[in-house]
Amino acid sequence: MNLSLRCAHVTRCAAAGAFGALLVGVATPARAETGYDAWLRYAPIPTEIARARYTSLPRTIVLLGDSPVLRTARDELARGLDAMLSEPVALTAAIGRGPAIVLGTRDRALSALPGAGVPQRLDVDGFWLGTSSTGGRRLLVVAGQNDRGVLSGVFALLRRIALHEDIAQLNERQEPAAPIRWVNHWDNLDGTIERGYAGRSIFFENGRVLDDLTRVRDYGRLLASIGINGATINNVNANAIVITDGFIPQLARVAEALRPWGIALSVSIDFSSPRRIGGLDTFDPLDARVAAFWKDRVDALYRAIPDLGGVVLKADSEGRLGPSAYGRTHADAANVIARALAPHGGVIFYRGFVYDHLMDWRNVKNDRARAAYDNFKALDGQLDSNVILQIKHGPIDFQVREPASPLFGALQKTNQAIELQITQEYLGQQRHVCFLVPMWKEVLDFDMQATGAGTPVKDLVSGRTFGRPVGGFVGVSNVGRDTNWLAHDLAMANLYGFGRLAWNPSATSRDIATDWTKLTFGQDPQVVDTVTSILLDSWPAYERYTGPLGAGTLTDIIGVHYGPGIESSERNGWGQWHRANGTGIGMNRTVATGTGFVAQYSPPVAARYESLASTPDELLLFFQHVPYTHVLHSGKTVIQHIYDSHEQGAQDAAGFVERWRRLERLIDPERYRGVLSKLEYQAGHAIVWRDGINNWFLWLSGIPDATGRAGRFPGRIEAESMTLERFSRAAVIPWETASAGQAATCAAGGSCAARHTYQGASGTFDVAVHYFDENDGAARFAFSVGGREVDSWIADAQLGSSSPNGHTSTRRTVRGVRLAPGDEIRVEVSPAGSDGGALDYIELVPVR
Amino acid sequence: MNLSLRCAHVTRCAAAGAFGALLVGVATPARAETGYDAWLRYAPIPTEIARARYTSLPRTIVLLGDSPVLRTARDELARGLDAMLSEPVALTAAIGRGPAIVLGTRDRALSALPGAGVPQRLDVDGFWLGTSSTGGRRLLVVAGQNDRGVLSGVFALLRRIALHEDIAQLNERQEPAAPIRWVNHWDNLDGTIERGYAGRSIFFENGRVLDDLTRVRDYGRLLASIGINGATINNVNANAIVITDGFIPQLARVAEALRPWGIALSVSIDFSSPRRIGGLDTFDPLDARVAAFWKDRVDALYRAIPDLGGVVLKADSEGRLGPSAYGRTHADAANVIARALAPHGGVIFYRGFVYDHLMDWRNVKNDRARAAYDNFKALDGQLDSNVILQIKHGPIDFQVREPASPLFGALQKTNQAIELQITQEYLGQQRHVCFLVPMWKEVLDFDMQATGAGTPVKDLVSGRTFGRPVGGFVGVSNVGRDTNWLAHDLAMANLYGFGRLAWNPSATSRDIATDWTKLTFGQDPQVVDTVTSILLDSWPAYERYTGPLGAGTLTDIIGVHYGPGIESSERNGWGQWHRANGTGIGMNRTVATGTGFVAQYSPPVAARYESLASTPDELLLFFQHVPYTHVLHSGKTVIQHIYDSHEQGAQDAAGFVERWRRLERLIDPERYRGVLSKLEYQAGHAIVWRDGINNWFLWLSGIPDATGRAGRFPGRIEAESMTLERFSRAAVIPWETASAGQAATCAAGGSCAARHTYQGASGTFDVAVHYFDENDGAARFAFSVGGREVDSWIADAQLGSSSPNGHTSTRRTVRGVRLAPGDEIRVEVSPAGSDGGALDYIELVPVR
Repeated sequence: MNLSLRCAHVTRCAAAGAFGALLVGVATPARAETGYDAWLRYAPIPTEIARARYTSLPRTIVLLGDSPVLRTARDELARGLDAMLSEPVALTAAIGRGPAIVLGTRDRALSALPGAGVPQRLDVDGFWLGTSSTGGRRLLVVAGQNDRGVLSGVFALLRRIALHEDIAQLNERQEPAAPIRWVNHWDNLDGTIERGYAGRSIFFENGRVLDDLTRVRDYGRLLASIGINGATINNVNANAIVITDGFIPQLARVAEALRPWGIALSVSIDFSSPRRIGGLDTFDPLDARVAAFWKDRVDALYRAIPDLGGVVLKADSEGRLGPSAYGRTHADAANVIARALAPHGGVIFYRGFVYDHLMDWRNVKNDRARAAYDNFKALDGQLDSNVILQIKHGPIDFQVREPASPLFGALQKTNQAIELQITQEYLGQQRHVCFLVPMWKEVLDFDMQATGAGTPVKDLVSGRTFGRPVGGFVGVSNVGRDTNWLAHDLAMANLYGFGRLAWNPSATSRDIATDWTKLTFGQDPQVVDTVTSILLDSWPAYERYTGPLGAGTLTDIIGVHYGPGIESSERNGWGQWHRANGTGIGMNRTVATGTGFVAQYSPPVAARYESLASTPDELLLFFQHVPYTHVLHSGKTVIQHIYDSHEQGAQDAAGFVERWRRLERLIDPERYRGVLSKLEYQAGHAIVWRDGINNWFLWLSGIPDATGRAGRFPGRIEAESMTLERFSRAAVIPWETASAGQAATCAAGGSCAARHTYQGASGTFDVAVHYFDENDGAARFAFSVGGREVDSWIADAQLGSSSPNGHTSTRRTVRGVRLAPGDEIRVEVSPAGSDGGALDYIELVPVR
Repeated sequence: MNLSLRCAHVTRCAAAGAFGALLVGVATPARAETGYDAWLRYAPIPTEIARARYTSLPRTIVLLGDSPVLRTARDELARGLDAMLSEPVALTAAIGRGPAIVLGTRDRALSALPGAGVPQRLDVDGFWLGTSSTGGRRLLVVAGQNDRGVLSGVFALLRRIALHEDIAQLNERQEPAAPIRWVNHWDNLDGTIERGYAGRSIFFENGRVLDDLTRVRDYGRLLASIGINGATINNVNANAIVITDGFIPQLARVAEALRPWGIALSVSIDFSSPRRIGGLDTFDPLDARVAAFWKDRVDALYRAIPDLGGVVLKADSEGRLGPSAYGRTHADAANVIARALAPHGGVIFYRGFVYDHLMDWRNVKNDRARAAYDNFKALDGQLDSNVILQIKHGPIDFQVREPASPLFGALQKTNQAIELQITQEYLGQQRHVCFLVPMWKEVLDFDMQATGAGTPVKDLVSGRTFGRPVGGFVGVSNVGRDTNWLAHDLAMANLYGFGRLAWNPSATSRDIATDWTKLTFGQDPQVVDTVTSILLDSWPAYERYTGPLGAGTLTDIIGVHYGPGIESSERNGWGQWHRANGTGIGMNRTVATGTGFVAQYSPPVAARYESLASTPDELLLFFQHVPYTHVLHSGKTVIQHIYDSHEQGAQDAAGFVERWRRLERLIDPERYRGVLSKLEYQAGHAIVWRDGINNWFLWLSGIPDATGRAGRFPGRIEAESMTLERFSRAAVIPWETASAGQAATCAAGGSCAARHTYQGASGTFDVAVHYFDENDGAARFAFSVGGREVDSWIADAQLGSSSPNGHTSTRRTVRGVRLAPGDEIRVEVSPAGSDGGALDYIELVPVR
């Protein structure tokens, strides 16, 4: 027996004092459910389950060998078992005669336990979980191909326990689908995050790495638990300073925080660095001085961070400088840096997101979707073996529905990684629930038929199809300093799901959602069923109330990419065109009469998208320009589909609230309330979307909604039609983002009131107050009936805009309001400080 | 013989010293042609013509009676004869034995010259011009019904001479069509003018009447010369202060300046004055204290200005307070003031421009056009006899094409005046030539068939049809301190034409244009023909390149009402809706399926507008909503008409430049250059209009231009596509007001350059540089080819906006530029002070 058996509970042990080097002081502090622990809550296993399933689980952990990652594995296992099973765990360095959980690399496990069934071969980062009774001892072996494999195996074991799975007999070999399983962060050194929606950077502030890296370590743990092995921590729109001698020690501190979790640091670089920070007058990749600069900087990086993963480069894109400045190719650019990295085993991710954002929109043959292929196809074979082309999953930019990028199928001699976006830039910015795994899987499972059938994107990007040495998955994470990492508790399913898919892209969406829900919210069947179904229904709902039929998200593409802004994509060079006019909509990308983009796919795929008859409805407007009266495979016209899907999507979002409400006593109140308020907000914003899109298309097409819903709002009273005190009436831009195109705006300097005398029949109503919650203030809203204040709230959300528009449009529902004829309904806005407020309408919804 | 014959020339006489009371010191100073004298230039008559026609004209003026107006008449006659004929004029108070021009009222003339043929009867303000040889003397008699009639007769005589007409035998009786021939001014007391485009007020500055009223006197002379008899000098959006004891003396000074010209002053009043300045807590027109207030104020006005014409009132309109505040009618409001005016013989003009500017635009039955009739028809017979309802000529608001207001035909027991707008608010703001007489005549001659055929608007408003005691014409003049009064020399034809029509609405547009041209620019046949034809073609051209088929002007209706801004009229409460959507355009105002407005006309007129078949093309979209593919009576579809008319309109405007250029040596260089620069600007802005409207409808309808011109701009190089130095690319709002929707904007703080390397064949081009001339700065633009500066200019126009848009969009043409392949074209913008500049495109037009 082992010394530490004297201590029955590691948490209490740690609290009780020091117990020598063999004792682990890791503890789960008693926390409210803040979401900080995400899916690693290690909730205590109910006694009956623990007794039934885990009594025979050894309580001694034997660690073979030693390294920071191995120690992490051991400590995490102890922490998990302690928390979930509340039984003493002993730690030791050698296999004794009693039952034990043995952790070690495959090599060590094989030699220590020759008959235990440890596999002879494991892929990089893979692991084996096995049970053995060699020598009469119950042993549970976690053998990794490497230290990281051991850690992954430990997390896998803990997950099985957390999921209450039977682990009496284990013989499970797991290997990741691809060697690259990285996250990117678009964090700026000043602490802001481009397209980050959960607070400031956990890495940077004021041009420096944060002093306290606790969050980074805890984030590393989350990443390691889902098999992530690399993290790029600064924005791809990179500040050149990150690779200066002055900054590298800062990076080294982050590398140190992530290293115990097996996460390799990497860094985004600025291609013009030779000129910006290198004292050169050029950054021409073929200039020997430039090559020397890159070697010098890369060597310096590796001196400080020997296990650096590599670098990420965005060049010649959206205003970033690149090789075109010297007439050089992307291969020239990538290779000069790749050659500096190669001696250290580092890789360079070269972003394929290169396009002309100043395209002439009037030329109907122009097509941004063509850009990645047009830029990189010809370079196939010219990129060094440690260059990875990082390709966004679709040809545009993370829209709500895109086909797979044709570049995946077009490269045979180039390493690839698929770039997926965990942060919900175009997909609700973590104010809307939108579970992305089903969307990602549509692309990952899509058969590019690159060399006949059987080449799904997941096999192309992993390198399997064409036998490339590296490749895989990059997820743009953008977690922030919000306690629950991504602002919306349900959004963490996307980070979780990304890791699971990067490890095994063949996992099903339902399995991932179910596992995540159980780990995050527990195993109550109603909770699991409700949360899982909300997750699985969320992307379809979001698609329904935003951009239909592959037309793009229809958000404001110029600014914050959030609320509706349909015309923002038109008549500019950004190329996110949907080409809606009075007669029809859609981008004609066919070869016969369109931009020819379709030809970038393999012939069988191209044939499907070339033909109007065989293009699937959900991508119709991505590939074809059709009249509004075109009849879909569904049997509906395009215009009626637009109307109906937006009505349905808003109903879906309202349904999420109702479904969630049924969980009130089944999950912790903190997360119940947090998610509820987000879902309620989402349901309101889904109405903003529904009305914006439907009103706009109703106007543009001139074709009425056959169901009579679009454009008709019974029970709605426009603010601009109410009796106004101090309010001004103002047009809202774009018009479709306010009901009737207008709002009542309240200038700073005093309160404003809007009054309406109710004249209908007596009854009970849910009264929606629809207002604009602008960034630049925190106006107080008060809702009164007959002189009595019924509700009040502060409009202090940060919705990315300080104007009334589709981003800031917000709905507050005051439930169960009794109204009788003659009652005065009054909304009062009290602007704070120097900023005003704006009211769109109120809407009376009878309570049945 | 007469004493003054000693003096051969009154100008020189005046210069030579005093010649006693009988000699007149009036002189035409030797001026450059500034436009200040307008049509009263009194240009010297060529000797041969003078000898042939005017030798026998008496050189002695006999004035019968005395009054300020009579003295003015005498002096003006002397001034005119002196200037035109350069021969001595003698003044005397009694008829002698020699030839004479005798001026006097009809009564005095009858008794002094019983056999001279002076008519026994003349209508108010009428006159008779006659020649007589009674007693062997050649007499030319100017007899007026009153003093003002004498003055009008003198101006008529002078006009005949200025037009080189034979006056040997005269027997001409002229009487005005209506007693009311007034101008309104929308001048604010601070010196600004609402919808004024020719500088600051000639009446006010800093809350006071100007010290120097020379301009007012000279303006009174212009008005008197065309028969105007009243002037309201302050904005209908009135400042209550104008009728305070403190301000009335100021008004009296203006009245004094106008009095010698027979122009009665009147004043716009604020209906809430009893509360604002009267110390009352109400302005309820039925409150006795309010009635007492008005009596007190009106009495005070008449004490200071015994010949005050009356007052103008805008109430319950566009935010102005009115009787609705107390549930009172417009009749209550008008009558309370009318009763204060009646004892003094004053009248009140009650503006019929009352409408709800907060109408729900989504209700397709709502219709602002209905408002005047709906508000006032029911009050017919309730307005006192000194109330005049002042009705805008069309039911909306001075759009480029409107039908006659149905209210004209609907009132039988109400005095009316038609409000015409001389200031070109919606019609080019005196930067575009737009001769309005033909437009006005369309309305004035329109037969409302109020009681069967034969009731044209001109007879209804004059009071003739229904025997009303007063009625007539009000023109919103808004002259300003610009030397030539209305900023554009050709715009003065509108002021002139208004006066001529108010006197005789049956005068033809051609006659008015021809007379004005001869008086303003002289009698060269090519000048007369060219200017007259430009005038007559100008409204049709303006209509062609702005709003088609009665849809409204399609300008930005929210702000400055100038450049294109098609969607500004939609989706707000202002009610200037054209209802364009993807399938069609137009307001359905029919009884059967529309707003029912048509029923406001008499049955035969209503029948014409109710039917799609009989609605005239030019008003089609005012009365009907039709698909773009509807075929007009012209045989064209609506959409092709839009495209073609805008192409034609822009060509028309370009043609004005060419036609004007042929006058280079035929008129004075000052006005030649001044008008030329305006016509060139207009031709450029007509292209802004053409492109804005055609691009928008091309997009909205999705129907291509059968001629292939709309949306195609060969030779155009977008600024945003050029090589830019320091420029930023920016979207322009609304998009249709910039070519391709975008511009290159230059922020303050340094120069910006846009470069383009010419690659076409060698040749000579007119190069248009299309930029935005914003109000907020005076950027310098320089155009260079191959490093050589070819042209430069300062963009310092005041176009009503400080943003790039349809108002500020401006075209500069650099003529005869030689280009060879490889030449670099460069446009440099140097912003002034804290303001930037913006460039839209350059366009290369080969010179044939």
